[in-house]
Amino acid sequence: MFRVGILTASDKGAAGLREDLGAKLIEEIFSDLGWRVSSYKMVPDDQQTIARTLISMVDNEELDLILTTGGTGFSQRDVTPEATRSVIQREAPGICEAMRAAGFKNTPRAILSRAIAGIRYNTLIINLPGSPKGIRESLEAVIDVLPHGLEILTGKSGECGEG
Amino acid sequence: MFRVGILTASDKGAAGLREDLGAKLIEEIFSDLGWRVSSYKMVPDDQQTIARTLISMVDNEELDLILTTGGTGFSQRDVTPEATRSVIQREAPGICEAMRAAGFKNTPRAILSRAIAGIRYNTLIINLPGSPKGIRESLEAVIDVLPHGLEILTGKSGECGEG
Amino acid sequence: MFRVGILTASDKGAAGLREDLGAKLIEEIFSDLGWRVSSYKMVPDDQQTIARTLISMVDNEELDLILTTGGTGFSQRDVTPEATRSVIQREAPGICEAMRAAGFKNTPRAILSRAIAGIRYNTLIINLPGSPKGIRESLEAVIDVLPHGLEILTGKSGECGEG
Repeated sequence: MFRVGILTASDKGAAGLREDLGAKLIEEIFSDLGWRVSSYKMVPDDQQTIARTLISMVDNEELDLILTTGGTGFSQRDVTPEATRSVIQREAPGICEAMRAAGFKNTPRAILSRAIAGIRYNTLIINLPGSPKGIRESLEAVIDVLPHGLEILTGKSGECGEG
Repeated sequence: MFRVGILTASDKGAAGLREDLGAKLIEEIFSDLGWRVSSYKMVPDDQQTIARTLISMVDNEELDLILTTGGTGFSQRDVTPEATRSVIQREAPGICEAMRAAGFKNTPRAILSRAIAGIRYNTLIINLPGSPKGIRESLEAVIDVLPHGLEILTGKSGECGEG
Repeated sequence: MFRVGILTASDKGAAGLREDLGAKLIEEIFSDLGWRVSSYKMVPDDQQTIARTLISMVDNEELDLILTTGGTGFSQRDVTPEATRSVIQREAPGICEAMRAAGFKNTPRAILSRAIAGIRYNTLIINLPGSPKGIRESLEAVIDVLPHGLEILTGKSGECGEG
C-alpha cells in the first residue's frame, strides 16, 4: 500500500479563511484506491516555506507520493512549482504534460497551469491545481499509471494488502 | 486593455535584409483584439542582446505581454529560448506545449520549435516562431486563454475600455 | 547522409547480463533510412559516465544525432535525462513531448518517461526508452521531422548520396 501526503499552498487557507476542499478531494480519491493518506500540511504561498515543508515530508515521513494543491497559476503569489523544482532531484515532465493536455479538452485554461512533477529520493511529488475541478481533471489523466511508476520507484507493490 | 510588446530576433531583419512580416502579423492579431501594441524592437540573434532587450522592455515599459518572434529553431544562431529562460522568474510550460501540440496536427515540424514561455515580474513572455504561418498556428492554440492569465497576473481586466 | 551514434545506459547490459535489443532496433531503423550508424557505446546507469560518454561522442566523433536508450524511467538508477541535461546547450522540448503524447495513446505508461532532447554543438541528442516497444513508438512519432531539424542544425542534406 502506498503512503500519500498532501501539501496545500494557500494564503487564505493558512489564515483560516478558506475551507480546504481541494485537499479533501485528494484524500477521498486516494483513500478510495486503498492508499494510506498519512500526512496533511497547509502552508501559505511562500516559496521557502513550501520547499522546506516538502523536504521535511520527504525526508522524515516515508511517503511514496506527495500531492501539492494550489499555487500553480499566474498570480504573483503562485510559487509552488518553483518551490518544487528546488527540492526535486529528477524531473518527470510527462506527468504534468498529460494533465494539461487532458485538461485542455474540457477547460482550455488548463494550459495556464505551471505544475511540475519530479522525484526526491524515494518520493514522487506532483503539483495539482487548487480547485476541486482542476484536481479531478488532472488526476483522471494520470492516476492509472501512478501505481506502476511508484512500484518502480519504491520497490513496493501498490496492491492493497500486499504492500 | 493589455499592453503588448513585440521583440523580433533576426540577423537578417536587424541588418535590414528582410521585411518583418512576423511582427506585422502579431501586431495585427493583437490590435484586432483591442489590445495596445506599444513597443516593437528588432535585434540580431545574439543571446545577450535578446536577454538585455527583454529585461529593458519588462522593467521600463509596463508591458503585460511580450511576444518574441524568431530564433526558436535548430540553427546555430537560434537562441531566443535560452535568452528568455535567463530572464524569466517563473516558467509557464503549458503555453508552448499547447502551441506545439496544436501545430503538430497541421505541420509536424512544429515539434522542432524550442519555444518557452514564462513570467518576469508582471509581464508574460511567449516565444513564437519566425514565420507568419507558424505564428498564426501557435497563437490560435492559446490566444483565447491569454486574457484570463494576464488578468490574474496583472490584476487588470482585458476588456476593451475597462482596463 | 547523417551520422548516428547510439548510447545504451544499462547496468545489466554493461555487465554482459542482457542482450541489447534496443540498440539493435535503433540501428536497424536508422540504417533502413540510409543513415550511417557509426558509433555504439554501452555504459552502466551512472550519471557521470553517461555524461562523459556523451561529451566524448559529440566532441570527437562528428555525429549528427545521438540516440540514448535506457535510464529514462523511475528506478533509482535511471539518470540518463539528468546526464543529458548536463551536456546539452539548447533544449528541444517538443521532441519528447511528441514522443510521450503519441506513446500515451497506445501505452499510457509512456507519460512516465522522463526523456529529454537537446543540442550540443552540432549534435542532436534524444533520449529513448529501453524497451524495443517503447523505442519504436517513440521514434514513429518524430522520425519524419528529424531530417529537417538536422539539416538546419548541421547544414547537411539528409538525402542518401547527397550529404
